[in-house]
Order: sequence, then structure tokens, then C-alpha cells
Amino acid sequence: MTRFAIGVDLGGTNLRVAAVNEHGGLFDHLSLETLVERGREDVVDRMTNGILELVNRWKDRYQLAGIGIGIPGILRLKDGVLVASPNLPGWENFNVRAQIAKRLNSPFFLENDANAAALGEKWIGSGKDVKHLCFLTMGTGIGGGLIFDGKIWHGVSGMAAELGHVTLYPGGRLCACGNRGCLEAYAAASAVVSAAREMLQEGRASEGLQKLAASGSKLTSARIYELAKEGDPSAQEIFQMVGRALGMAIANFINIFDLDTFVLGGGAVEAWDAFEKSMFEEVALRSYVWRNDPREILKSSLGSQAGIFGAAYLALG
Amino acid sequence: MTRFAIGVDLGGTNLRVAAVNEHGGLFDHLSLETLVERGREDVVDRMTNGILELVNRWKDRYQLAGIGIGIPGILRLKDGVLVASPNLPGWENFNVRAQIAKRLNSPFFLENDANAAALGEKWIGSGKDVKHLCFLTMGTGIGGGLIFDGKIWHGVSGMAAELGHVTLYPGGRLCACGNRGCLEAYAAASAVVSAAREMLQEGRASEGLQKLAASGSKLTSARIYELAKEGDPSAQEIFQMVGRALGMAIANFINIFDLDTFVLGGGAVEAWDAFEKSMFEEVALRSYVWRNDPREILKSSLGSQAGIFGAAYLALG
Repeated sequence: MTRFAIGVDLGGTNLRVAAVNEHGGLFDHLSLETLVERGREDVVDRMTNGILELVNRWKDRYQLAGIGIGIPGILRLKDGVLVASPNLPGWENFNVRAQIAKRLNSPFFLENDANAAALGEKWIGSGKDVKHLCFLTMGTGIGGGLIFDGKIWHGVSGMAAELGHVTLYPGGRLCACGNRGCLEAYAAASAVVSAAREMLQEGRASEGLQKLAASGSKLTSARIYELAKEGDPSAQEIFQMVGRALGMAIANFINIFDLDTFVLGGGAVEAWDAFEKSMFEEVALRSYVWRNDPREILKSSLGSQAGIFGAAYLALG
Repeated sequence: MTRFAIGVDLGGTNLRVAAVNEHGGLFDHLSLETLVERGREDVVDRMTNGILELVNRWKDRYQLAGIGIGIPGILRLKDGVLVASPNLPGWENFNVRAQIAKRLNSPFFLENDANAAALGEKWIGSGKDVKHLCFLTMGTGIGGGLIFDGKIWHGVSGMAAELGHVTLYPGGRLCACGNRGCLEAYAAASAVVSAAREMLQEGRASEGLQKLAASGSKLTSARIYELAKEGDPSAQEIFQMVGRALGMAIANFINIFDLDTFVLGGGAVEAWDAFEKSMFEEVALRSYVWRNDPREILKSSLGSQAGIFGAAYLALG
């Protein structure tokens, strides 16, 4: 009997629940909205209902291996408490594990969403066949996941791989975490927008960027990327900033871990061609381990589904 | 029959060979000079002669478990080639393992010296009873060692834990590795001297520092530390720089690894009371993982012997 698992990716906006078989085939899924504003208990209700719906649909045909759930934020593994989560306001110090357990009545794995995505890439994505992996997911924020010897590296309390919060510019842009100059403040989608706003305020934005801002349409990293592709100098400068920050962080990670493979995922990785040149330049400049022995820096091959696959693999692996 | 091992710490200046028993007792040792200027083959000759001397002295009384050798620089584990080593000029791309093997005729372990020191601290030092450990050794340069689950983390090629070469100040002071703004360029003993020289050149050095420089005695980090203890403002400012750099780096390592224990060793750790305040302030400012859950940052308890003990433990463990 083929085994399957339920993989869940609970994001600040989207809540995705999927049924995945042991060969990495996603054969059923529910795409819901998180609707954080309805309160955390309501979100957990709808999530567990979605899980049970898919379990009941398939449990007679296939063997249920288990359930894996990825959630954003700093998760304390010991007790399943979400210590902090910028994407789930109001969930600080919420015992997520206890709340889910009350509703599911069956065992499940709870994991940080970026760790889950890293595991997905390791299972069937760009990190397939690799022993160690460093994964960065570039969305509104920047999450990280470390796979050592095929397993998620949790550290002592489950809070490891907060890779978006390494300091790159000590006196730099304020980050949501309270520090200044974090990678996240320079390379996340939100950082692209912040950098554009700074340019506009300081009166050094290109004509194209000024037009975009005046057009009334929302300033997003996707729109700024479109401008960069059209050759706009301000937009290109912004993605060079992204590349330099990523390159500096990756150089540090190479010097620290000596891993062979780095995978970049999340929506903002779409702008790869706008930041890759400055990223690779910066890695070579900053890492003498790299200069002696270059490594792979790859785009995610699973895209936004990495987290679902990884969550499912928690139960299948 | 009690087991013993030979532990070797080959430094740029000193070459130490010791006999250590399985309980962590150091019962015999040779303190030699490295004399790099005589050439690498000569150094390897004297090192292996020293090893054989101690082996022959004790092999009838105790059971030889093996030999462990710590050497400075980037060591490629696959073939035992020293890829780069600022402290052993002329040893670049030297096949150290083959050269030692030719002379020893018995198996031995070869390890980066900071990794060996980290293992020593884990075995019988400040990291005793700890599962994971991040070790920084502050000497002329800054080396690093990572112990995960009780074992040295090597990465894919043995070059991991180059923790002195994480970038802290992107446009900062030039580092021996070719990058700018590395931890080493701000917190090593050599950085203390460089910072003092900068102050003198820029005409902003205190009276005390000017006097020290004019006295004809060599400007060393130890002398600058003495000044700091006497309350000299320039010397104190320099050690605040050291503390900020260490704190920023440790904050990054906490966010990355989520380890519980950090150990600082090497000669420059003697100045602990001059840098600890700014170090702890910076860690709290930079790491939100720390703010949620503080960790231990400890002085090495083995001092300059950590490397010898760790090298011996490679064979005893």
C-alpha cells in the first residue's frame, strides 16, 4: 500500500494543506487563506479541519504515514511554543503544539516553515543528493534552514538558522527584529521596497521609479524588478544591493559551515538575474574558502511548494 | 593498562608535543620552537622526532592509543594538503599528511589547530558536559572550532569554522585573508596593535598610548591591555572595539546555530575584563534569539593547552 502524508504550510497570508505520496507526488491539496485577523484559535480550527478533510479522503486508499506542519517564526521545540512570529501577529508565546494536538487526536510534526522548506529542497528539490544544505527563503522576510547530514539542524532549542538576522551592516537599516543591518533588511522583498522609498525620499530616484511611485499602483518588489529588467538605473541599483547583501551573507556561511550547496527560494528569488552578478562578486571577494574551492549557489526548484513537501517529508522520511 | 596518546600543537612560533592519558592527565611534554625559517621538511622532521621520542619513552608502560596533530591553516581533509596557512609561510599546498606519514610509520590524526582546541575544551575544559560548542581562539589571528553532537564539524572539505573571517564591517580594516572588515581584523591581538597604530597616526591617541609608543618597547596587545587596566581612554576604546566585534560575531553565531555554549580561548582572552561589557551589550543588541533565551559565553579553562589536549583526544576519543 502506497504511503502518504499531509504537509501543511501555514503562512501569514496563505494556508496550504496537501496530500503527498512517498515518491514526492502531490496528489491533492487545499488552498485556503490564513485570515490571521480572525484570531489564532480560528486559524488552528480551519487548519486542522483541512488536515482531517484530506486524511479522510485518502486514508482508505493509501496508508497515512503522518502529518507535518510548517509554521513561521521562532518555535521552541521542547514545548511547541511559538516564541515570536512577525508573520502571525498575536501568536507570541502561543502553545501551537498543544492547540493542534487538542484538535487532531493523532501524532504530528511541527516545524519552522523555512526548516521545512529546506527539507523539501533536500528531498526532491535543488538539494537532492546533497548531504549538507543551507537554504535561504526570500519573501517578505528572510528565513533560513540548515540540513546537516540529511537532517534539519535545530540547535539546542529549535531556534537555529535564523539566517535572515545575521548583521551585515552594523549601523544600517532597522530590521523588524530590533537590530540594525540584518540580511533581511537588505535582501527581503520588503527591503527592495524600503530601498526604493528611501531613494524617492532622498530625491535620487530615477525617472522610471518616480513614475511608478506616482502611478498610484502599489510599490512592490515585483514591479521594481520589472523596472530593473527594462534597464532602469535605480531599480538595478536596488537589486545590486540585494545581491551584495546575499553574497556577503553566503560568504560568511561558506567560511562558517564549509557546505557544498546553497539554495535560494521564496518569491523574491524570481529576480535572480537582477542580483546574481553582484552576489557572486561579493562571495568571491569575501570568502577565501570559496576562492580556494567554489560551491554551488542554486535557485530553488520547488518554489512556493518547498514547504509543503518538506512538511510532508517530516512524516515520510 | 592505561591508554595514552601523543598530542601535538604545531604553531607558527611554538611546537608542543605532549603525552596525555585517557583521563586527561598530561604527564610528559616537549616544548620546542617551530623555526619555520629552516623550511617545512625540517619542521616536520623535528616534530616527528619529538613524537617518536615520547612514544618510545612511554610505550612499554602504557598502551599507545594513537597520535593527534593540530596544525594552523586551512587543511583539506581528503588528501591532507594544507591549502593556506598565514602562520606557516611557505607551507601553501604542502601535503602535510604524506610528509608526516613517511616519517612516522604509524597511523595518526591530522586536524586544524582551532578545531583541536575546541575538542580539548569539549573533552575536559569549559565545554565539558556540553553537546554543542562554538570555540573562538584569539591569538595573532582568530581561529574557530565547532563541535556538534560532541564531534568536530568539518564541512564538506574540512575547511569549516573559519570563524575569524566572517565579515562584520563591509568596508572596514583590511584582513590578512584579502577581505575587509573580518572579525579577525577587529578582535585578534594583531588588531589591537593595528588600532593603536591608527590612533597614533591619526593624532587621536591618549597621552599614555603616545608614551608607550615613544618608549621604544614593542607595541603589543598585552601592553595595551595593561594601559586599559590603568584607565587609559585610548586603550579602553580599543578593547571596546574588540568586544563589539566579538559580540556582533557571537550574536550572528547564536542566530545561526542556536548553540548553548561559546568558549573564548587564546592569549588575547586574558583581556576579558576589558572587552566583556561591550561584548555582552552587542550580543543582546544583535541577537533576538539571545534576547529570548541567553547563552553561556565562557573563558577557556585550558588556555594554551587546549590544542594539545584536543589533539590527544582525537586518538583517545
